[in-house]
Amino acid sequence: MRALVLQEKGRMSIEEIPDLGSPGPGEVRIAMHTVGICASDVHYYTDGKIGPFVVNAPMVLGHEGAGTVVEVGEGVTHLAPGDRVAMEPGVPNPASRAVKEGNYNVDPDVRFWAPPPVHGCLADEVIHPAAYTYALPESLSFAEGALIEPFSVGMYAATTAQISPGDVAAVIGSGTIGIMIALAARAGGASRVYVSDVLPQKLGLLEGLEGIIPVDATQEDLGERVRAETDGWGPQVVFEASGAAPAYKGLWSLPAPGGRIVLVGMPTSDVPFDVSTAAARGLSIETVFRYKNVYQKAIDLAATDAVDLGRFVTDTFAFDDSIQAFERFLEGRPTDVKLQITL
Amino acid sequence: MRALVLQEKGRMSIEEIPDLGSPGPGEVRIAMHTVGICASDVHYYTDGKIGPFVVNAPMVLGHEGAGTVVEVGEGVTHLAPGDRVAMEPGVPNPASRAVKEGNYNVDPDVRFWAPPPVHGCLADEVIHPAAYTYALPESLSFAEGALIEPFSVGMYAATTAQISPGDVAAVIGSGTIGIMIALAARAGGASRVYVSDVLPQKLGLLEGLEGIIPVDATQEDLGERVRAETDGWGPQVVFEASGAAPAYKGLWSLPAPGGRIVLVGMPTSDVPFDVSTAAARGLSIETVFRYKNVYQKAIDLAATDAVDLGRFVTDTFAFDDSIQAFERFLEGRPTDVKLQITL
Amino acid sequence: MRALVLQEKGRMSIEEIPDLGSPGPGEVRIAMHTVGICASDVHYYTDGKIGPFVVNAPMVLGHEGAGTVVEVGEGVTHLAPGDRVAMEPGVPNPASRAVKEGNYNVDPDVRFWAPPPVHGCLADEVIHPAAYTYALPESLSFAEGALIEPFSVGMYAATTAQISPGDVAAVIGSGTIGIMIALAARAGGASRVYVSDVLPQKLGLLEGLEGIIPVDATQEDLGERVRAETDGWGPQVVFEASGAAPAYKGLWSLPAPGGRIVLVGMPTSDVPFDVSTAAARGLSIETVFRYKNVYQKAIDLAATDAVDLGRFVTDTFAFDDSIQAFERFLEGRPTDVKLQITL
Amino acid sequence: MRALVLQEKGRMSIEEIPDLGSPGPGEVRIAMHTVGICASDVHYYTDGKIGPFVVNAPMVLGHEGAGTVVEVGEGVTHLAPGDRVAMEPGVPNPASRAVKEGNYNVDPDVRFWAPPPVHGCLADEVIHPAAYTYALPESLSFAEGALIEPFSVGMYAATTAQISPGDVAAVIGSGTIGIMIALAARAGGASRVYVSDVLPQKLGLLEGLEGIIPVDATQEDLGERVRAETDGWGPQVVFEASGAAPAYKGLWSLPAPGGRIVLVGMPTSDVPFDVSTAAARGLSIETVFRYKNVYQKAIDLAATDAVDLGRFVTDTFAFDDSIQAFERFLEGRPTDVKLQITL
Repeated sequence: MRALVLQEKGRMSIEEIPDLGSPGPGEVRIAMHTVGICASDVHYYTDGKIGPFVVNAPMVLGHEGAGTVVEVGEGVTHLAPGDRVAMEPGVPNPASRAVKEGNYNVDPDVRFWAPPPVHGCLADEVIHPAAYTYALPESLSFAEGALIEPFSVGMYAATTAQISPGDVAAVIGSGTIGIMIALAARAGGASRVYVSDVLPQKLGLLEGLEGIIPVDATQEDLGERVRAETDGWGPQVVFEASGAAPAYKGLWSLPAPGGRIVLVGMPTSDVPFDVSTAAARGLSIETVFRYKNVYQKAIDLAATDAVDLGRFVTDTFAFDDSIQAFERFLEGRPTDVKLQITL
Repeated sequence: MRALVLQEKGRMSIEEIPDLGSPGPGEVRIAMHTVGICASDVHYYTDGKIGPFVVNAPMVLGHEGAGTVVEVGEGVTHLAPGDRVAMEPGVPNPASRAVKEGNYNVDPDVRFWAPPPVHGCLADEVIHPAAYTYALPESLSFAEGALIEPFSVGMYAATTAQISPGDVAAVIGSGTIGIMIALAARAGGASRVYVSDVLPQKLGLLEGLEGIIPVDATQEDLGERVRAETDGWGPQVVFEASGAAPAYKGLWSLPAPGGRIVLVGMPTSDVPFDVSTAAARGLSIETVFRYKNVYQKAIDLAATDAVDLGRFVTDTFAFDDSIQAFERFLEGRPTDVKLQITL
Repeated sequence: MRALVLQEKGRMSIEEIPDLGSPGPGEVRIAMHTVGICASDVHYYTDGKIGPFVVNAPMVLGHEGAGTVVEVGEGVTHLAPGDRVAMEPGVPNPASRAVKEGNYNVDPDVRFWAPPPVHGCLADEVIHPAAYTYALPESLSFAEGALIEPFSVGMYAATTAQISPGDVAAVIGSGTIGIMIALAARAGGASRVYVSDVLPQKLGLLEGLEGIIPVDATQEDLGERVRAETDGWGPQVVFEASGAAPAYKGLWSLPAPGGRIVLVGMPTSDVPFDVSTAAARGLSIETVFRYKNVYQKAIDLAATDAVDLGRFVTDTFAFDDSIQAFERFLEGRPTDVKLQITL
Repeated sequence: MRALVLQEKGRMSIEEIPDLGSPGPGEVRIAMHTVGICASDVHYYTDGKIGPFVVNAPMVLGHEGAGTVVEVGEGVTHLAPGDRVAMEPGVPNPASRAVKEGNYNVDPDVRFWAPPPVHGCLADEVIHPAAYTYALPESLSFAEGALIEPFSVGMYAATTAQISPGDVAAVIGSGTIGIMIALAARAGGASRVYVSDVLPQKLGLLEGLEGIIPVDATQEDLGERVRAETDGWGPQVVFEASGAAPAYKGLWSLPAPGGRIVLVGMPTSDVPFDVSTAAARGLSIETVFRYKNVYQKAIDLAATDAVDLGRFVTDTFAFDDSIQAFERFLEGRPTDVKLQITL
């Protein structure tokens, strides 16, 4: 079968790799249909590493996948051949303490697609635990199924934020993850979600989304804007989705008293933390690492009118054009949200 | 000025009562525009009491009100004459322990409109603390403003439920409060809200509401239906909104493992609690008394496309026809949701 | 090797059973030292069943065990032969949704020692997953190690109660579980724990325990007593540990406004629930099924001066006298707390 | 009556000031007995300001007070002349949104003793709202009553930490607040509290406190120590109580996966925040500003054997020697915990 293999930093190719055989107990074999490209895939391609994860051997890329079940292993009851599915790419060690405590996303032993050395899903087929494979309803396309992965990041951020119905939220950064957070926060109960960015084209992507309010950070201050429209109170929940150091400057005074900051963007070095300003407001700060227990809920919400993921697929490439898809990503067009590859 | 006064059980009349004078510090004077009729108003009319609250002296009825500020007291800064407003009818004792702990709704000393002996708002004017008076945005009518009160019950139920984005919810009972809960739960993050009732006309009121699924309890079992559509798992959150003793029979096995039951309906006597069934699922059960800290959020959410309160105003009566409005309520038409009176 | 086998209802005997062989990957083999007798063991003996769990084939009894590791399987790193250990008797299915969500105690597929058909630990040796086996510090005896199981029920109740430091707590019922709850609640942050019972001898067991206050329910009302000593406010947390129907009568008005009831006792039929009284106080009600993620914490707390489990071992029997131990349990002496068997 | 008046930066004197008259409704008049000196009092003395709070007019110092009620205003029922009491020094605006939401500690309008311009309690008498005045049990001395204020900071930190019974905690910094946190965390349910400091004399203050483990930060790494004694897992809860910039270096990798950091120390400028390290562990970070709803609980816990506040009163000065007390504070003796003044 075919796979998109990162041979080493900067060198990628479509290769024939051995068939996978049959799924073991509790596993399913899936014919891949659509795989989205994530910034992390591109980083491994250009840099050969992300933090402690280094590409030391050829590795199949991709972790945002949807496909069709072709074979189920022993004991699998909730899936059958022919089911259209999306797959949660991280599988924890079930004996770990983090799993027992309900925090499987931070299990140090988690095996996640395509941080090395684990192979990803940009291949004709994958074998995956049924417990981390989710049936797609008819109303969701494969493209939307592959978007469940980044949407799950937004969903987990919104879950962690403990939004109360009607809360006002703010999101810093209108990149792919910022958009996913805004969708999840709005569908997850926020009455209004203010999204700020310094690039007007990024904000243009939000046009027409009810309850999502773009704020051009080059023209106005996000905090002033929200306070002006909340009787001076501010947003109950703020999501930092840029990871950009300057964004942390105004962050600590942004939420309302008793509010919450959810940190989703990952800055590459330490950022300045104004503890006394945050404390004077009694803020809570939550960090978010990938996601847990949101895949099914992400699918359920994406299947409603409240969330339209499909509009955020900017372009789709045939598998043979995978490398072009990566090159397009590297152009960094501000209006690109999600590029996908079909197999 | 005029007021609808309950003289005693079964005897109600429109009376001239003394003007209120000027608002004190922190208070506002409001010209009432619309007041909804609640079942409790009707109970005081027909029975002269509800539980420990007995009508021993003439009392102005009504607690679901919207109007226009006509005068503001000293120190009021966030409201001005001409502002259209909705009023939270319960005002706690600020020195109470419940208030300090953030539970002002259960303050034993709370003064709430029209449980006796406190006068309600079915009058030309009221004086109210500015801290419990909320400006209405242009997009909300007075009728919708007056509906914020029952919607707040739904909002507080949904808040107490701690819905995670994408959760599946179920509501038992499609009366006014059941509907308000369904709206709040759906807008508050549930992907689907199943609402069951034994009266098909009640379920008909939900027609066309996206994500809200009516279940005819005379035809199918709510639990079976939800489990069938959630891979056998069940709803994460169940709201009991009927207060009807038979509803508690299947209640304790209805939620998914680790789920939550929110009790909103108030049965008039003890109901049977199957502790071991609830425990085997590790359920939490929350009770809901009125609401706290949701009025502003209810307004904010009602102002979005996610919630349309206006469709639930079934009929409107002139103030002079107030008694006819109460008589209409007593007819108990299954398609009546909210009857309102305008001043 | 030897085991205490319940052949069928009312017939129990010490039998030779086959050796267990070597532990598999992630497992350990343990030489049992001490096993406590739980009311459930005795129920299976006298009734042959508890609810849906029926003894249809010979079954080894016992689930409160401590012993010494004699062999470790592949991949086990945190335990070694010679380690003294206590074992958590329930092992969930790691692929289940309940486990993923952090609620492994309510996994429908959990395998728990000695509800049938799973064999218990009253045998010379057991094989158990290392992830559910916990090293005992030197300061804890085997007897105390075997008490970690019932103490874990108290620990999980106290954990579920979300005690804030300094809260006042009340426990209804001074049986073994009521005592375990009182110890855990006091060590877990409560400033005072009032424990009520109708048997003075049960209350006598609490003598000398600092911060634990016995209340003779035949002489005074628990609620009145606590309110009298809390300025009329009442306990923030109430544990129901009797499972006795009459205890539910005053339960719903017992906690302070905004308080919490934790239901630990398992009544054998429905109990009356006064919803409107509970709601007027805005109460939360938590159910507790066994425990999760508390074994290590129970050991850590039992190893401090704050908890002395040892004083609650009333009597110890040699393995050959196991049946006498069960007969003694059936005498129901009010001063018996825990009877144990040593191997 | 007499008062210790800070005339301006660096100039303090005992003055005669006018009597206070009678308490208003809901207020009590209190004869002060003991007042502790806090670092903030000393800062106002030496610097004339703390952040935005500037001493522009003569101000009575002191906010850690205990005394005896001498007169009660109208409507006060839970206190009577002769009652020994401790006073919560911050009184919020009851109409504020923060109060309604249960966050009275972050009410921007709070009036707190002796940040200017509000007078403190180092005077013969004060008038205070009864709702923020708490009766002391016989078992607590006035000295301990005055220590309830700093202990409340520890209590609120421990409350915010949401300690589960048996959790392992760590505290960075063994100053007065670090000690108060350690006491509250241990009595609040932690099985062990590791406290690190760079000054051995500070650690010596913890000697003999069961379950509190001093760690000399000049000799060993706090994280390594705790991990070595928790099977590599680390503490569930970490309190930062030093406010010292270097302490933040190792902070973000210190807690166990899924753990919580509570920031109590107030650094004077931004500190470095390693977001990706914190996120990889899924940490929550809580800020703490003063306290709310813990005074009564602090008194209740201090009245038990679990907490001995009295040992932390290092020295006591007569009111006439107040200035000497401040000078002694400025010596910065490492073994000084709390210095108090009696009236």
